[in-house]
Amino acid sequence: MDLFLKHKNNIDVAIDAILSRKYFSVYPELPKFYAEDGDIKAKNFIGTLLNSDFNELLQERSIEYIGEEVSPFLQVGLGIKYPSYIVSDLILNAQRSQRTWCKISINDRTGILIEILERLKTRFFDLAYATMHTTGQSFMMSFQASGPHSNDRALEAIIQGYIEQTKYVTETDWIKPMGKFDLKIHKVFNPFAKGVGLVIGCSTFPIWNTVPGLFADLITGNSVIVKPHPKAILPIAIVVAEIQKVFKENGIDINTVQLAVDTLNDPITKQLAENSTIKLIDYTGGSVFGNYIESLPKVTFTEKAGVNSVIIDSVIDIKAVMQNIAFAVSLYSGQMCTAPQNIFISKDGIKTKDGIVSFDDALKILCECISDLVNNPKAGAPTLGAIQSDITLKRIEDSKNLCGKVVLESKAISNDDFPDARIASPTVIVFDRNQNDIYNNEYFGPIVFVIKTDSTNDSIALVKNLVSDKGAITCAAYSIDELTINNIAEEMNEVFAPVSFNFTGAAFINSHAAFSDFHVTGGNAAGNASFVNTEFIVKRFVWVGNRYA
Amino acid sequence: MDLFLKHKNNIDVAIDAILSRKYFSVYPELPKFYAEDGDIKAKNFIGTLLNSDFNELLQERSIEYIGEEVSPFLQVGLGIKYPSYIVSDLILNAQRSQRTWCKISINDRTGILIEILERLKTRFFDLAYATMHTTGQSFMMSFQASGPHSNDRALEAIIQGYIEQTKYVTETDWIKPMGKFDLKIHKVFNPFAKGVGLVIGCSTFPIWNTVPGLFADLITGNSVIVKPHPKAILPIAIVVAEIQKVFKENGIDINTVQLAVDTLNDPITKQLAENSTIKLIDYTGGSVFGNYIESLPKVTFTEKAGVNSVIIDSVIDIKAVMQNIAFAVSLYSGQMCTAPQNIFISKDGIKTKDGIVSFDDALKILCECISDLVNNPKAGAPTLGAIQSDITLKRIEDSKNLCGKVVLESKAISNDDFPDARIASPTVIVFDRNQNDIYNNEYFGPIVFVIKTDSTNDSIALVKNLVSDKGAITCAAYSIDELTINNIAEEMNEVFAPVSFNFTGAAFINSHAAFSDFHVTGGNAAGNASFVNTEFIVKRFVWVGNRYA
Repeated sequence: MDLFLKHKNNIDVAIDAILSRKYFSVYPELPKFYAEDGDIKAKNFIGTLLNSDFNELLQERSIEYIGEEVSPFLQVGLGIKYPSYIVSDLILNAQRSQRTWCKISINDRTGILIEILERLKTRFFDLAYATMHTTGQSFMMSFQASGPHSNDRALEAIIQGYIEQTKYVTETDWIKPMGKFDLKIHKVFNPFAKGVGLVIGCSTFPIWNTVPGLFADLITGNSVIVKPHPKAILPIAIVVAEIQKVFKENGIDINTVQLAVDTLNDPITKQLAENSTIKLIDYTGGSVFGNYIESLPKVTFTEKAGVNSVIIDSVIDIKAVMQNIAFAVSLYSGQMCTAPQNIFISKDGIKTKDGIVSFDDALKILCECISDLVNNPKAGAPTLGAIQSDITLKRIEDSKNLCGKVVLESKAISNDDFPDARIASPTVIVFDRNQNDIYNNEYFGPIVFVIKTDSTNDSIALVKNLVSDKGAITCAAYSIDELTINNIAEEMNEVFAPVSFNFTGAAFINSHAAFSDFHVTGGNAAGNASFVNTEFIVKRFVWVGNRYA
Repeated sequence: MDLFLKHKNNIDVAIDAILSRKYFSVYPELPKFYAEDGDIKAKNFIGTLLNSDFNELLQERSIEYIGEEVSPFLQVGLGIKYPSYIVSDLILNAQRSQRTWCKISINDRTGILIEILERLKTRFFDLAYATMHTTGQSFMMSFQASGPHSNDRALEAIIQGYIEQTKYVTETDWIKPMGKFDLKIHKVFNPFAKGVGLVIGCSTFPIWNTVPGLFADLITGNSVIVKPHPKAILPIAIVVAEIQKVFKENGIDINTVQLAVDTLNDPITKQLAENSTIKLIDYTGGSVFGNYIESLPKVTFTEKAGVNSVIIDSVIDIKAVMQNIAFAVSLYSGQMCTAPQNIFISKDGIKTKDGIVSFDDALKILCECISDLVNNPKAGAPTLGAIQSDITLKRIEDSKNLCGKVVLESKAISNDDFPDARIASPTVIVFDRNQNDIYNNEYFGPIVFVIKTDSTNDSIALVKNLVSDKGAITCAAYSIDELTINNIAEEMNEVFAPVSFNFTGAAFINSHAAFSDFHVTGGNAAGNASFVNTEFIVKRFVWVGNRYA
């Protein structure tokens, strides 16, 4: 069956969604829209996998089985082992598979890749539990982020790739009048893949942050080696296995996408990244390694650390605002790259419709909102999820010694379903405006800084400097004054940070929707790429035109 | 008057031309389509300029007047002096002007920039003589390359920028159904300029190679510093002056585009390039400096040296083919970046419709065709133009000692109009296939290598290695066998070299037409950018989306 035709409707609506940037989702985000027995089957699937080998991959000639994942909810090792390979074998396989994959037509590539997303749909519950027990995301976030939201982002990359590679005519007769005669030249234009891509995953969003680069590479004809974080392999291993199965069914070399696992003690990422065959690198993770990746003579797409800020100038309802911020900093314990860390409030307080709320009162309301949320027996644990790594837990402890005033301590929250889960609620620490050598650094995890500034204009200037220096993926602002709103937009956009204004209720700074929000602008130190704009696609292939007399 | 509306027709046809890639020209290439008194006025203009100061620029606060251009046709210094500036002043001016220019709407920017092209149209004869007496191009090539062809390329950059920056909606209401209610967020999307651009020109095509980057920077809201080659300032100085005049008329800061001149002994390029304010660099020139530019932590667009090859497998009419090649290597004395240097022929000769032509006979015919062309009193001198620099002249002399067999010597050709002109016809040197350490290097100028290979397949393999190693901007191939044609296309395209097949008559490998041919693919060592594809545009700005609850 022609897979392009099969998925033609999705293709057409996705093209329209990308251009109009309105709400659109091929994959609804709630579990209830998927198989009724999906949940129970997925629990069995994960249960059976524990302490055994992952054998879904179709890759051959592994050298040994390795794995060291730990469930943040169970705090025990999963014991799942994955096949590992010699780097030179991975490279050779990638080179070979590239040669055939890049010759598949763009329409066929589009159809095959969307078919893969349809297969992944049947694994959303598996992906959810795999994500939950590697990243510490709650079940609901795991389901949404690694299932439908990832699929939507992948579809966005595929369709952007389809748009860019079909924008010019493929063939034309170029006819130039020369006076006495016409000069006629037949021209053929084709996009050619740049080479083998390497996609390096992170420990907190192993699928959502990996699939845009993975599918952008594939739609533009590049073969891919996926190098997951050693602590979050399972989710993307399932994705790669499904990709390989669809490839096999369609007569495509399964090595077009290979999984390359390693361990913290014996990493292979640099060996892969520096190999001359690797032309494209997608990376999500810390800034130090990200800067190293960017320094390589390759085409790189990075999402690194940034510090996201909130500027509070004036509000209608202070409680609604603080509740929104409390949720934004608590969701997955501040382990989202879009979570705000620094909240800037003037020493003169916050104007509200009921008068000025003092700095101290505002702080108190924020802390109360956080406490109310995390202590709520129904909402607390599911919002916080669990802490992915020991390092983050230690960072929370160390934050007490940052020379700020701790006004809310992090505390262990219990989760009835997972008594051993590693859970920590956000701590809130107050800094003076001059302590920017401290608060201008990313403290990944449930660590919130409130900075007392001289004025809203001072807040704006401090945030602008911070973004300009360290980068930011997003920022939030609260103001009921139009001039201030425009000023904040202008100042932040100048350093390429997008602003979310006056979010309350169900609108959260953390969420970046596929087909609409560009995730990371690519313009500041938080990363050099953006999900999924035109640049994210066109740097992966080369237009070549042949001319025939 | 609304300049966007004024030029709406050009905009619409250019958009169509870019997508359809058919022949299109807003600016006809022959002098006869322009002012009748243009030629005489231009001669007067240049004559008056000699040994005086160039005072058309609106830039202020110059420190001194400098200039060291030499006419390759007259072999005397032009004596024209240009205002020079302190680098830090140029940078400050650029930063300041950027702030206002990037706020002009995209439509207005488009209109203003096309208006500039219309003004340049009135200077085509001036530009022609300026180009002729700095680069050594013949009058006709100078007129076309620096006039209509440059304007077409600039228009292409403007329109590609317009397309890319208007492809998404500017504002939308994003409405997500949440079950019991709809979540509504107003979103605003805008492209933001990356910063100040530096455009570094070359000595042979001071306008054609400069305007794509210059106008691509401008349409995406960046201010620009233009740094011409010290030996080819006048042509682009006129362009910058016209830009500044149109800016002034329209209330735009004239420092949005500044000319920054220097001398060979006291260059300022590195000082500019390494300044942290410079975010974008366009560069045309040698590979060593080009590789340095690419190594800077900036967004770079380079066109460096490559070695262009011709593969001759089989032909219908050997003479027609050799005449075509003779013209391609002689045009502007091989000083075009698209000129072929290496001609690969099998030791078994060339199949033709009249039987096999031996390697030696083919060589003989090539040399005869070159001699016929260069010695033709009407065609010779106008085809060759003049040699731009002493270094090129010396290179021709040195080529005798390359351990190849010189089968045609370069000779001085006389030009009745310019008895002192520095003219040298192409030399032809034969190499064995194994001498690739010699012939795999660029010998810029009228130096042609013929390489005797084992077979056409051997030729293909040698060229592929050469392109993969040193890069190529273009390549030509002659074959009447479909399998061979497809094989050559596949092998060359794999290393990102475009192929022109079986060009005879008026079709020449050298010409790359705006709106149709991508100039340089950006995929091999000859350069990392392409005139004018999507990537050439989208790397110059950042999409930022603000969200309003």
